[in-house]
Amino acid sequence: MTFRKIVALHPVPGDDFREALLRCAEECVDCGASCTACADASLSERDVRELIRVIRVALDCAEVCDATARITIRQSGPDIRLIRATVEACSAACLACAEECDRHAAHHAHCRVCAEVCRRCKAACDDVLAR
Amino acid sequence: MTFRKIVALHPVPGDDFREALLRCAEECVDCGASCTACADASLSERDVRELIRVIRVALDCAEVCDATARITIRQSGPDIRLIRATVEACSAACLACAEECDRHAAHHAHCRVCAEVCRRCKAACDDVLAR
Amino acid sequence: MTFRKIVALHPVPGDDFREALLRCAEECVDCGASCTACADASLSERDVRELIRVIRVALDCAEVCDATARITIRQSGPDIRLIRATVEACSAACLACAEECDRHAAHHAHCRVCAEVCRRCKAACDDVLAR
Amino acid sequence: MTFRKIVALHPVPGDDFREALLRCAEECVDCGASCTACADASLSERDVRELIRVIRVALDCAEVCDATARITIRQSGPDIRLIRATVEACSAACLACAEECDRHAAHHAHCRVCAEVCRRCKAACDDVLAR
Repeated sequence: MTFRKIVALHPVPGDDFREALLRCAEECVDCGASCTACADASLSERDVRELIRVIRVALDCAEVCDATARITIRQSGPDIRLIRATVEACSAACLACAEECDRHAAHHAHCRVCAEVCRRCKAACDDVLAR
Repeated sequence: MTFRKIVALHPVPGDDFREALLRCAEECVDCGASCTACADASLSERDVRELIRVIRVALDCAEVCDATARITIRQSGPDIRLIRATVEACSAACLACAEECDRHAAHHAHCRVCAEVCRRCKAACDDVLAR
Repeated sequence: MTFRKIVALHPVPGDDFREALLRCAEECVDCGASCTACADASLSERDVRELIRVIRVALDCAEVCDATARITIRQSGPDIRLIRATVEACSAACLACAEECDRHAAHHAHCRVCAEVCRRCKAACDDVLAR
Repeated sequence: MTFRKIVALHPVPGDDFREALLRCAEECVDCGASCTACADASLSERDVRELIRVIRVALDCAEVCDATARITIRQSGPDIRLIRATVEACSAACLACAEECDRHAAHHAHCRVCAEVCRRCKAACDDVLAR
């Protein structure tokens, strides 16, 4: 994604932790858009009444991913506690959404794909938190 | 705020925890808009170069508050882990923003007011987490 | 809302147009949260399959209102074309959501309340555009 | 981006207009993240006091792009007026941000890259509006 080129031109140099944040940002951007798409596809399914919970959790996960994306993209004047707390919330949101999508993956392929992207995003969050 | 009237008409009844979430949602809406306003006012100050960190933290806090507001407003099919993790992140973001605003409160009254609203929002988040 | 106190402390003075923008911002904040709540209440209704369109439109209206709120709250370095185009989109989104909510107002009181707040927000947008 | 795979699994089939919306969504996701990154890089520049306007406009453009991304990703129960009005606002926001970034492109390479992505996003918006 193009934001990577822009961040590489930021006047303050990044470091190894910064690189982990940017991989996390890329996954958050991908996952946020995917959760928005999965909630929307679920809303049009014939068995929508069985999908209320996955719609809700995917909408919530999209909010957390999109907020975390912006926060991990930014490099100026960071507050590490705020960043870590947000990435932790994103890891929890992605796990919750992946597990809820798993329950519908056999019947709805969009839920299967969404569970995969949520797990990739969770792994990128956890890699930030391991540092 | 009007969303309270709409939530009161939700087909699924709320409970005591739900009431704490809605108080949290109200503070998040107020705090998110306030952090957006404080980051913007700081950007126009003559000493903006001293205010990079408070601008960044207020922008980040606005992202977390606005995401948490939407998540705590929703009542259908909740995932408690996701909600608690998000409210925890919001509490951390509000504390970080309040402390950074404190450092500039003597010179910039908008930072003083923003620190106050961040502490009210943190208290509402912590009340959710205490249940 | 507290953001008003913060904007009043902005180092650059506002004007009459600015006052219309801030009334618009207040309505956008109220309307965005209300549309989030109405989409969520609709998702839990027994006749959810009849409510797909109002859920979609309310989710979209919330996105536009929340983006417009942030843009109209900011006072530093404005681009008038960008602001007007966004407020126009918000007026159109609020009208679309009000009309869709009207269709369900007889059966779902949350849709009736949401239509009212959408029309208040549209009026505040149109007042900006009339200047 | 992964959301494309999920949208391809949506139960309601898309059409030619839908394909234009999805190309627009991809550009909006890329542009929103890029504008967030450019505003942030500008905030850390030594001549930040000359960059207030580009910071403001890039923050605003990110709001519009991210809202438009979600709206163009969704396929269920669309309101065409709302979608077109939002895409129009996004086209205007991208033009405003590209022109403001142009003014700083000679000194700040991140503004040059951001202007390019804004123009790509504007073109994708205009392609939607031409149909």
